[in-house]
Amino acid sequence: MTHPLDLAPPEDFNRLDAWWRAANYLSVGQIYLMDNPLLHRKLELAHIKPRLLGHWGTTPGLNFVYAHMNRAIVARDLDALFIAGPGHGGPGVVANTWLEGTYSEVYPDVGLNTAGMQRLFTQFSFPGGIPSHVAPETPGSIHEGGELGYSLLHAYGAVFDNPGLIACCVIGDGEAETGALAASWHSNKFLNPARDGAVLPILHLNGFKIAGPTVLARIGDEELTQLMRGYGHEPHFVSGDDPETMHRAMAQALDTVLDVIRAIQTEARVDGFTRRHRWPMIVLRSPKGWTGPKVVDGVPVEGTQRAHQVPLTGFAQHPAHIGLLEDWMRSYRPEELFDAHGTLHAHIAAIAPRGLRRMSANPHANGGALLRDLKLPDFRDHAVAVESPGASQGEATRVLGGFLRDVMWLNDEQQNFRVMGPDETVSNRLGALFDVTNRTSTARVEPTDDHVAPDGRVMEVLSEHLCQGWLEGYLLTGRHGFFSCYEAFIHIIDSMFNQHAKWLKVTRKIGWRRPIASLNYLLTSHVWQQDHNGFSHQDPGFIDHVVNKKAEVVRVYLPPDANTLLSVVDHCLRSRDYVNVIVAGKAPAPQWLDIEAAVRHCSVGLGIWDWASNDAGVAPDVVMACAGDVPTLETMAAVDLLRTHLPDLKVRVVNVVDLMALESPSAHPHGLADAVFDSIFTVDKPVIFAFHGYPALIHRLTYKRTNHRGFHVHGYQEEGTTTTPFDMTVLNHLDRFHLAADAIARVPRMTNSAAHVQQHLRDRLLAHRAYITTKGEDMPEISGWQWSANRVARD
Amino acid sequence: MTHPLDLAPPEDFNRLDAWWRAANYLSVGQIYLMDNPLLHRKLELAHIKPRLLGHWGTTPGLNFVYAHMNRAIVARDLDALFIAGPGHGGPGVVANTWLEGTYSEVYPDVGLNTAGMQRLFTQFSFPGGIPSHVAPETPGSIHEGGELGYSLLHAYGAVFDNPGLIACCVIGDGEAETGALAASWHSNKFLNPARDGAVLPILHLNGFKIAGPTVLARIGDEELTQLMRGYGHEPHFVSGDDPETMHRAMAQALDTVLDVIRAIQTEARVDGFTRRHRWPMIVLRSPKGWTGPKVVDGVPVEGTQRAHQVPLTGFAQHPAHIGLLEDWMRSYRPEELFDAHGTLHAHIAAIAPRGLRRMSANPHANGGALLRDLKLPDFRDHAVAVESPGASQGEATRVLGGFLRDVMWLNDEQQNFRVMGPDETVSNRLGALFDVTNRTSTARVEPTDDHVAPDGRVMEVLSEHLCQGWLEGYLLTGRHGFFSCYEAFIHIIDSMFNQHAKWLKVTRKIGWRRPIASLNYLLTSHVWQQDHNGFSHQDPGFIDHVVNKKAEVVRVYLPPDANTLLSVVDHCLRSRDYVNVIVAGKAPAPQWLDIEAAVRHCSVGLGIWDWASNDAGVAPDVVMACAGDVPTLETMAAVDLLRTHLPDLKVRVVNVVDLMALESPSAHPHGLADAVFDSIFTVDKPVIFAFHGYPALIHRLTYKRTNHRGFHVHGYQEEGTTTTPFDMTVLNHLDRFHLAADAIARVPRMTNSAAHVQQHLRDRLLAHRAYITTKGEDMPEISGWQWSANRVARD
Repeated sequence: MTHPLDLAPPEDFNRLDAWWRAANYLSVGQIYLMDNPLLHRKLELAHIKPRLLGHWGTTPGLNFVYAHMNRAIVARDLDALFIAGPGHGGPGVVANTWLEGTYSEVYPDVGLNTAGMQRLFTQFSFPGGIPSHVAPETPGSIHEGGELGYSLLHAYGAVFDNPGLIACCVIGDGEAETGALAASWHSNKFLNPARDGAVLPILHLNGFKIAGPTVLARIGDEELTQLMRGYGHEPHFVSGDDPETMHRAMAQALDTVLDVIRAIQTEARVDGFTRRHRWPMIVLRSPKGWTGPKVVDGVPVEGTQRAHQVPLTGFAQHPAHIGLLEDWMRSYRPEELFDAHGTLHAHIAAIAPRGLRRMSANPHANGGALLRDLKLPDFRDHAVAVESPGASQGEATRVLGGFLRDVMWLNDEQQNFRVMGPDETVSNRLGALFDVTNRTSTARVEPTDDHVAPDGRVMEVLSEHLCQGWLEGYLLTGRHGFFSCYEAFIHIIDSMFNQHAKWLKVTRKIGWRRPIASLNYLLTSHVWQQDHNGFSHQDPGFIDHVVNKKAEVVRVYLPPDANTLLSVVDHCLRSRDYVNVIVAGKAPAPQWLDIEAAVRHCSVGLGIWDWASNDAGVAPDVVMACAGDVPTLETMAAVDLLRTHLPDLKVRVVNVVDLMALESPSAHPHGLADAVFDSIFTVDKPVIFAFHGYPALIHRLTYKRTNHRGFHVHGYQEEGTTTTPFDMTVLNHLDRFHLAADAIARVPRMTNSAAHVQQHLRDRLLAHRAYITTKGEDMPEISGWQWSANRVARD
Repeated sequence: MTHPLDLAPPEDFNRLDAWWRAANYLSVGQIYLMDNPLLHRKLELAHIKPRLLGHWGTTPGLNFVYAHMNRAIVARDLDALFIAGPGHGGPGVVANTWLEGTYSEVYPDVGLNTAGMQRLFTQFSFPGGIPSHVAPETPGSIHEGGELGYSLLHAYGAVFDNPGLIACCVIGDGEAETGALAASWHSNKFLNPARDGAVLPILHLNGFKIAGPTVLARIGDEELTQLMRGYGHEPHFVSGDDPETMHRAMAQALDTVLDVIRAIQTEARVDGFTRRHRWPMIVLRSPKGWTGPKVVDGVPVEGTQRAHQVPLTGFAQHPAHIGLLEDWMRSYRPEELFDAHGTLHAHIAAIAPRGLRRMSANPHANGGALLRDLKLPDFRDHAVAVESPGASQGEATRVLGGFLRDVMWLNDEQQNFRVMGPDETVSNRLGALFDVTNRTSTARVEPTDDHVAPDGRVMEVLSEHLCQGWLEGYLLTGRHGFFSCYEAFIHIIDSMFNQHAKWLKVTRKIGWRRPIASLNYLLTSHVWQQDHNGFSHQDPGFIDHVVNKKAEVVRVYLPPDANTLLSVVDHCLRSRDYVNVIVAGKAPAPQWLDIEAAVRHCSVGLGIWDWASNDAGVAPDVVMACAGDVPTLETMAAVDLLRTHLPDLKVRVVNVVDLMALESPSAHPHGLADAVFDSIFTVDKPVIFAFHGYPALIHRLTYKRTNHRGFHVHGYQEEGTTTTPFDMTVLNHLDRFHLAADAIARVPRMTNSAAHVQQHLRDRLLAHRAYITTKGEDMPEISGWQWSANRVARD
């Protein structure tokens, strides 16, 4: 094992310190300067940006870690990623990528010379330039520095099934207070050193958030040590502010922890996984705004919360600050770092890794470039036989489980597919996966455990944050995944979805970023299946949240049965750069389409179900539309009632699988052309629309359509409790009786003649109510209802 | 100090064990039976519910803790709350409240007799009955057992400023994996024993979630001890399955930890707060489904994941299971517990606390009953002087800060108001609060810290989960609060908002639940003010999420300036049982209304700004509507352009403060009557609506209005980056130039004559773009734009 520290310490640290100073210099330059980048002239007000936007506080610490990681990469030929939890430190990470040459490679207008440096400075946090955070635009990054909390999860997601990779993850002490981060320390119980890479967490305690002190910086080393050990880590402390001492301490700590990591990996790879080790981590205590102005206008800045953003401001009002800024920048001795043309001196540049070993050029950080297609079985092999619509029953997600099992099996060699879920794989009927794999755990496994093993590929943890964060990291590094979740609780990761969708939107416009696999959600145990759990488990609003994001990155599917679900999932697993949201139930339910009909239906996104309609050749009196499995069932039962009791009524049935097909084509690429839409939904007939979610969403999607005023949407109205499955639809007026009654009421010519039918529907509702409150379950005529398979023949 | 354990252990444990058995018996009865509650007859299939819904696994552990807490309450005269993190254990908590008599007091039809017991059993998880989880319907509860993760936060929220209160908080090992729970252990750094009560966390390790093992049950006692110590707790382990041994161990552990808590409190209350202690907690390891069936059909159940829900099922198919169920229930020896009339034997009932000391009757759990009105200063005293509209500038949230300071000050004696925020109080310009209070911290405080103290009343932690959870607990126990947050990141608590809104909806229908103070959000540093941070910090969609919840509990306000903000916040702080969402900016901006005009405007919710309009006495050509501060500014600037360049165009300006006023009155109580709405927005003129958030929301709210087709909404379109404030509006077509151009394009008679104006607007946009990309800031004519104060005179 090479220890450069022991070999030639003074020389190494000089150059390493020079690198650090260069990165700090470039960071300050980005925050402040729009001219005179090398300070070849005396600094003047005109050289300083008018708007100063950026975060200095965390930056020197990030630069420090980056420089030291580079030293370790070179010494050990590491394949390493850099994940900057304190993404506010954008200027620091960008500075390092420029010093490594990567930045100029992907952005040739920002060259390794004075003009390039000036462009580097000017563009930062400048209109038409780059964001102030680590962002998709930053080479080597898989982690946006916006919303805090997900760095460690992204790091773990990146190294799963990447045995050669090490993710150096800097966690800010502000970020460490978030829920997601606090829970994610336990990710080490899901990492198997025999097949996965390693995460090196570096907890960077600079003591402050924006304005207040941080919790972990104020509990003392003893308590912090216990906390880290409790999380399954052995902390190594590097504390101080003297650069020379700190370089020595950091190099030593890094060598130690990397030795331990290698030892753990070697043991697991030679002997197989036998036990979970205490993984090393580093606690880096350094002053906030380290090496920046110590005191400004008599007030301490370095080492306080005042160093968080821009330590020096108000240059026009306080011309003396210009001198302070110049002194600060010159304290890095730029003339020792850059030649007259703004190029880093060769002897300093020489200490950086080369080529793909540069963290800024690590291919894992541009995962699409490494992405291999999933090997997909023919989903038709899993199809449910449907001889005629409604003739057979099936559990959609259970059928999907068989398909996913085969996906898992076929890609076992590639090791690039994982399924995530908060402990609901079996509950959501995807248990077939356990025919070929296990739940992942490297914590203690007991003999009575059900399919739990260190080499499992189903990641179950009761934290949607962890599932989401791991999966994001896994996808961003070029792999595939599937996240199944209780529908109501997916809101827990609303904000994480936001950030990922924003990342995708931005990356689509960055030429060098290659498309990654889509993030696929299966939302099940949904609002209409919570007879079990009640009101708190009922919320179909995630799709409302999703459709606020850019149409180019979001897709929403509501397959009505098992075969449509298969077709949709197959499509989603092949797609790239989307977030696909699939809502499908797990309860036994009628199956409507055979597999070929399902494929045709899904390829258009919505369509008339001729076999259920009786308006052939004429205009319908009413359109009965539906989206979602339970709404489809209730619509079919309502159509059954209508056609039985009012055979003259011309009913058209429309089913929607791809919700975005409802949108105007100008608003979403899946939107149906207006002429087609009008031909299906008519331009003036009443449309009784039974929808899985909140009714407003259908109005929102269709408000530009000709017949929008004719849409009468039934959906979830926040009425629910622990009751029978059918009663849930009754409480929200989504049931067959309400749907049929609404249809009759909306057809002018039926209003009087159908009074007796309306009375019949009311009676049936009352009978339902009386039955369930005494018997506790749905009437057999409800729970046993079946679409008349020979209806087509009968017509 | 009394130690009942030492005085008469055998007797106490017999009766305590009897109580526990009674609670277990009643729990099983609730899950299974609809008849024969006391098993006076042989159990038959007809006595068993057809649908079996409930969770047995966690229940006996909850019952165990409840019984032991009762013992401690009596011995020490404790004022205690019971918070059941594993809310799935609904039958257990309900059983205890029934045994204590409270249930029958609030629900007289569920009496303390055989009929009452039968009703208790039947209603559970039954249509028309009660939910299977701990719920608002459960007396003594402030914590819904639906979405997991918030028990410890609710416990802390409850005891803040309640020095006499102790919250016994049972945390399931499943829940412990969530992000919110993992972070909330650190709440003890925000608890001051001199003024706050105590939380006793009881981590209940029964080993399994739904299907898989839990992390904390599998890391071993040593690592778990370190974790708890790292969190600032000293764990006391109670492990086993033998009831007698476990009773002794639990009683001893509880006595020990309560002694420690009392000692910590005494020290802090005698000497003042001097140091943070390591607070005691209990780790309870007991089998999942403890005392339930050990083996069913040859498969182990007790102590495995199979005990999670209903251990015995399929009675019709497996008649032998009926006997197993009867054996199970009889194992609790009901004849020793209840008399022939179904009443708990007096000697057992005698061990429970009395009156308000019963945890089920603790008044803190019905916080509305304890609620004292906030003392509110006259918000008019904080008004910004506005001599004429737009004549003065102000920072809305900074003005609000002064008002909140006075609120804090006036209620210092009552100690019933706290402000929460993720470290953004000063950043959000509410810093005036620190004139009268500090940030809360009982961790180490350093001399350079800015207003940090153990007695601070501003709770800053970089976790929206913690802010939200603490505040919920604080409100639910009858106090007041205010949560200020960056707008984009409030999505982090989308799901927590859901659960709180659902709680409010349900409690409004429960007669004995008294109204609590509303949950007030201030969303600031909003989407239009993220020039600083860029795309990742831009998301105005929380209000979309909020309006999916029941209209009766949600309110959304978009005050356009400081005086309207004052009026809105004053109103919100007086309101009850709502969630109020207020969106307001912190940047310097024109002030439109003097305080009396602001009050009038807010009381209606929306209205015509006559002084900005020139349509007096005639129908307008176009309505320029706006909601939100930046949209109002841009609308006013657009109106300025229109009136300058097209003086013949009749423009009406409408401002919306109360977003729900746009809704139909049938959909929301604040909805304006259609006739009034039509008179304001016209029935056929174009409405150019500049909106703070996603445009779809305005369409959604107005889609039933006559002139809906006339609404052309400009809002956030997910276009953003780090750029100038004005450029953000340009990127999303919300700027004055786009608004004015849209208005001209929509007025048929203007289309040709105004071509030169359209060209002028395009030129101005191009000039803007050129300016910012070279200068880096907005043109002075943009950033310095002012509404012409003498416009009214000029007209």
